[in-house]
Amino acid sequence: MPHINLSNDFPGIRSLFMYRPVTAAPLNNLVQVLLHNPHSSLSAGERELIATYTSNLNACFYCTNIHGAIAKHQLGNDAEVVKQVLDNPENAPISNKLKALLRIAAKVQVAGKNVTTADVVLARSQGATDIEIHDTVLIAAAFCMYNRYVDGLATWQPDNDELYDKMGEQRAREGYLTPPPKVSEIVLTEKI
Amino acid sequence: MPHINLSNDFPGIRSLFMYRPVTAAPLNNLVQVLLHNPHSSLSAGERELIATYTSNLNACFYCTNIHGAIAKHQLGNDAEVVKQVLDNPENAPISNKLKALLRIAAKVQVAGKNVTTADVVLARSQGATDIEIHDTVLIAAAFCMYNRYVDGLATWQPDNDELYDKMGEQRAREGYLTPPPKVSEIVLTEKI
Repeated sequence: MPHINLSNDFPGIRSLFMYRPVTAAPLNNLVQVLLHNPHSSLSAGERELIATYTSNLNACFYCTNIHGAIAKHQLGNDAEVVKQVLDNPENAPISNKLKALLRIAAKVQVAGKNVTTADVVLARSQGATDIEIHDTVLIAAAFCMYNRYVDGLATWQPDNDELYDKMGEQRAREGYLTPPPKVSEIVLTEKI
Repeated sequence: MPHINLSNDFPGIRSLFMYRPVTAAPLNNLVQVLLHNPHSSLSAGERELIATYTSNLNACFYCTNIHGAIAKHQLGNDAEVVKQVLDNPENAPISNKLKALLRIAAKVQVAGKNVTTADVVLARSQGATDIEIHDTVLIAAAFCMYNRYVDGLATWQPDNDELYDKMGEQRAREGYLTPPPKVSEIVLTEKI
C-alpha cells in the first residue's frame, strides 16, 4: 500500500503523476527528452536499455518492468536482448559502445564520483561521443531519481508481464506525454 | 577537469545546462517547482535544507555549497542553521516536523525502499501532510539525480565560500530560471 493517500489506482510513477500534476509536468518532460525524442545519436531502444539496466541495479520492480517492456518494443520486439542486458551486459548481443556506456551507468548508479577518466576513455575508444557519454550519465542519474520516487512512496507495482508489455507497447509508440490507460481497461489474457 | 568538453567555464550543473539546453529545460523547471515556487506548504528555506542535506549525504561539493547558500538566504541569512542541519539535524534549531522529514530524506538517499511505514507515521505525528511527505521524497530523490549528474561528469566546482554566497543570494531572490552570471564577473573580496 502506498505510504500516502494517492486517491487513484494507477501503477508506479503514474499514480504519483496523477497525485501531483505540478511536479509531474517537468518529470514527464524530462523522460520524454531523455528516452523518446530524437535528440540523441543513441537510439530510443539503447536509451531505454540504459534506463532499464539502472532501474534493475536500483531494484525498482516497476521501472525495470515498464522500461524493459518499452525497450523490447523499441528494439523490434526483442525480449531476449533486454533479458541478457539485465543478466550481464558484457555477454549481451549489443555493441561494444553500449557495453562501455552501461559500465558508466553502473558507476553512476552507485555514486557520480565513481565514474573515472578510464571509463570515459574506454567509451570513446568504442566510438561514444561526448553527447552520448553526457546522455548516459544523465539517464542513469535520472533513474536514480525516478526509482527512489516510485519506491520511496511505496507505489502499487502490479506483477503481470503481459500488463507491462501492453503498457510498454503504448509508450514505445506514443512516448511519455499521453495519458496512461486505466489498468482495469487493459485487456489481458488473465485478470490481475 | 570535466570528463567531456563542455566548451564553457560555468561551474557545476550550470556548465551542463549550457552544454545541453534540451535537457536543461526540464531539469531547471523541475528544480524551480520543487524548491522555489510556492506550491508547497514547506517554505522555500525548508525545501532548500532538504536539498542541501541530501547533497551533503551524496558528498556533492557543488550542490551542497550552492543550495546551502540558497537555504541561508531563504532563511533570513541564517548560516548557522544550515551548518547545524549538515552536522546533525536532530540537534539543529528546526521543527520536529522538518527533523522527521529529513529522516525520510536520508532513507531515500540510500534507497527508496528504505522508507518505512514507521518513518511516515512519525512524520505525520509531527504534523507533516501527505503532500509534504511526497515533496520530501521527491526532493531527496531529485538530488540523488542532480548530485550524480554534477559529479558523474566531473564538472568544475570552485572552492570559495563568498562565490557560493553571491550565487546563492541571486537564486534565492530570482529562482532558477534566470541566466547565471559568469564567475569572472562576480565581484569577490579575493580572486579565485
